[in-house]
Amino acid sequence: MIETLRSFVDAAGLLTGPDIGERYLNTRGHSQAGAPLCVVRPTSTAQVSAILKACHAAGQTVVAQGGMTGLVGGGAPRGGEVVLSLERMNQIEEFDPEGRTLTAQAGVILQTAHEYCEERGFMLPLDLGARGSATIGGVISTNAGGVRVIRYGMMRESVLGLEVVMADGTVISALNKMLKNNAGYDLKHMFIGSEGTLGIVTRAVCRLRANPKSVNTAFASLPTFEDTVAFLGYLESELGGALGSFEVMWGAYDAFVRATCPSLRPPLPAGQAFYVLLETLGTDPEADPERLQEILAAAMEKGLITDAAVAQSEQQRAAFWAVRENAGEGFRKLGPMFSYDVSMPIRAMGDFATRVKSGVDAAYSNATTLVLGHMGDGNLHVVAAVGIGGAEAHSKVNDIVYGVIRDLGGSISAEHGIGVEKKNYLAWSRTPEEIALMRTLKSTLDPKGILNPGKVL
Amino acid sequence: MIETLRSFVDAAGLLTGPDIGERYLNTRGHSQAGAPLCVVRPTSTAQVSAILKACHAAGQTVVAQGGMTGLVGGGAPRGGEVVLSLERMNQIEEFDPEGRTLTAQAGVILQTAHEYCEERGFMLPLDLGARGSATIGGVISTNAGGVRVIRYGMMRESVLGLEVVMADGTVISALNKMLKNNAGYDLKHMFIGSEGTLGIVTRAVCRLRANPKSVNTAFASLPTFEDTVAFLGYLESELGGALGSFEVMWGAYDAFVRATCPSLRPPLPAGQAFYVLLETLGTDPEADPERLQEILAAAMEKGLITDAAVAQSEQQRAAFWAVRENAGEGFRKLGPMFSYDVSMPIRAMGDFATRVKSGVDAAYSNATTLVLGHMGDGNLHVVAAVGIGGAEAHSKVNDIVYGVIRDLGGSISAEHGIGVEKKNYLAWSRTPEEIALMRTLKSTLDPKGILNPGKVL
Repeated sequence: MIETLRSFVDAAGLLTGPDIGERYLNTRGHSQAGAPLCVVRPTSTAQVSAILKACHAAGQTVVAQGGMTGLVGGGAPRGGEVVLSLERMNQIEEFDPEGRTLTAQAGVILQTAHEYCEERGFMLPLDLGARGSATIGGVISTNAGGVRVIRYGMMRESVLGLEVVMADGTVISALNKMLKNNAGYDLKHMFIGSEGTLGIVTRAVCRLRANPKSVNTAFASLPTFEDTVAFLGYLESELGGALGSFEVMWGAYDAFVRATCPSLRPPLPAGQAFYVLLETLGTDPEADPERLQEILAAAMEKGLITDAAVAQSEQQRAAFWAVRENAGEGFRKLGPMFSYDVSMPIRAMGDFATRVKSGVDAAYSNATTLVLGHMGDGNLHVVAAVGIGGAEAHSKVNDIVYGVIRDLGGSISAEHGIGVEKKNYLAWSRTPEEIALMRTLKSTLDPKGILNPGKVL
Repeated sequence: MIETLRSFVDAAGLLTGPDIGERYLNTRGHSQAGAPLCVVRPTSTAQVSAILKACHAAGQTVVAQGGMTGLVGGGAPRGGEVVLSLERMNQIEEFDPEGRTLTAQAGVILQTAHEYCEERGFMLPLDLGARGSATIGGVISTNAGGVRVIRYGMMRESVLGLEVVMADGTVISALNKMLKNNAGYDLKHMFIGSEGTLGIVTRAVCRLRANPKSVNTAFASLPTFEDTVAFLGYLESELGGALGSFEVMWGAYDAFVRATCPSLRPPLPAGQAFYVLLETLGTDPEADPERLQEILAAAMEKGLITDAAVAQSEQQRAAFWAVRENAGEGFRKLGPMFSYDVSMPIRAMGDFATRVKSGVDAAYSNATTLVLGHMGDGNLHVVAAVGIGGAEAHSKVNDIVYGVIRDLGGSISAEHGIGVEKKNYLAWSRTPEEIALMRTLKSTLDPKGILNPGKVL
């Protein structure tokens, strides 16, 4: 097998044994991770096709890899697979300013694509913390989310065309560039978010947007969960498409940050029940800041919010975002911790946070449960530290968090995917009929089960 | 078969023979339309499931029908099918103002949903001329488009959750309400736009948006196609998410309207090469009109546009839109005519229009070819009148229009779908591998081929 694969690529295209670096193993504590047979690093779609054709004929399993920034073990080899890394398919192939599209190979780093577009006056809207390593193919295969979903949608909404290599090596080249195309089934959506289990993404046409001309960022404090919901509705109505982010932090998170992260400077007084970080993406650098001030003043007059601060400089803006995103320093002080990425109907979020905290507290004394997230998208992140790590405690906390999600009709994975981490809980969010249909799709498109085995299903 | 189906529904639920009204036949000149076996009109998902289960067992073909406003014969019976009309599943089941969702049965009329939402301060963005008859299930099954796609996307982007009954009666209930849900494969996209060939939509959760607070509409004239592209780019950059529509009309269309539609009043002087109708959806009724005026004045200074008029009243706004939408009076004077709904990369549109016109002119003397459309979405509509009707002329003009589309890498159907009308041309827009994969999906999900046979593939 290895010699066959070697014949398809150049000298740097195949790695075995000790040459296989850490990046391809992505252990990240996933106990199932094991050594792959080899790593193959193609540079073209034709090579990917040849590799898959050979693997398919031999019944050889294959794990596709991008930037290896996933959080659920979706790209981690479990042992014996061919790792197919797209890292060398890293060319931006076409930029179309009139059609506002970017055609890129799967291995292009997200940040590279961002910078390329920004220099030309455009934006690829998907953004997330791992932008410096995550790849276009990876964020498509996982349908990544991030902090601007309320405005621009998940990665799915930024993909116009897709090229995928199927398990048997067949190339599905559907590099559509139009916003509207109803000529037959829209096949790309089947592959987006399927975590490499149905096909391997090799190229994509991404939809670009005009660069926002003004970005305005504010922090607000609120007394009740109901107020945060009403505040979101108010902003949607006043700002329309200009609302780019709406991140909510429960008061306990703010208190935790103040206690454990001396480098962070929450801009509003402590002790409020809820804090919101919001950002508008506008087109009028002169009028937009004043408009946001007015809207916040009106919200305070209505009693929706108790206080607000608007960032007056890029430095302040970064400091606001750091409160939301850079609490790692504090998390490390918690010791072993379990983190969650879930979604639910917005109105259920207050109930969710209360029930998860009391569930964890009932099971463990001195537990810390922190809740925050992209409220505008229905997406919350939970961090739970119960004093111990290990599979048993993890499983027990999983049952608590996902149990509440099941009761509330939510999703066990808002944006991180299923991978191996959440596989056992899939049935808590999806019906038996849905899972049966997923299995039917999987066995139809990958009858020998060679693509990313043991993931998702 | 008929008696079995009768047992599932109430007395008004089954129609046969002369009781089958015109609405279920949708001949619209589709030569393949034939009499169905019967019409069954269920009132619940359970009934739809029972009907499909029985039909599946018997190998009985089924055509799902919504409002019967499709333009490609997708809902037309070809003879001998059970027509399954969703018209009595017309209940709005839930409205969630916090989550901004509407859960509706498939048979809810689009306009009913619009009015229901608008009264509550929200908008279901999808809008099209047939709103008074088209149904939620229909616009989902066809992934309808319309005049606001540049801002809000196709219907697909407004569907969060979907309930579908499969060919064998299995109910896939995936009534997700969250913007973010990556728990396993996103199955709904397989059914959206599949024109009833893979499953029958029974319910949906639609994403709502805040009602825009100000709508501003303008007409502009431009000297060249390149200027319209540059003008679109300029507006995207200046207006960001506020640009709701960007409709372009070639000069020949404007001249045709002036010559044949005395009731229409184009707001700008005649004789320009291009006209654009644009609309902004904003949140600041005081500032927005002035901002649009400024932007248009700057565009004129830059030489992008030669003239512009902003609607000063709702009546003027309607008059502007009428020029774009109500030229039926003129079309009727053309005699037999063939109309097209195609998409292509935006920069190819000028070339497309020129080549189609010269192709038609070369084949027919005294032909009229008019081009207009949703330029911001890559979508153009073409009307061609060549003096005669009939299948031979239709086929000849099809070959001209779709031939140019094939050369330019466009789509033979931007928003209308494939149905029976465009089936023979599918391969002009999609690769053999794509079509083979579509067939695989079809035979997997509907192995007996009972769902809407002879459509799409």
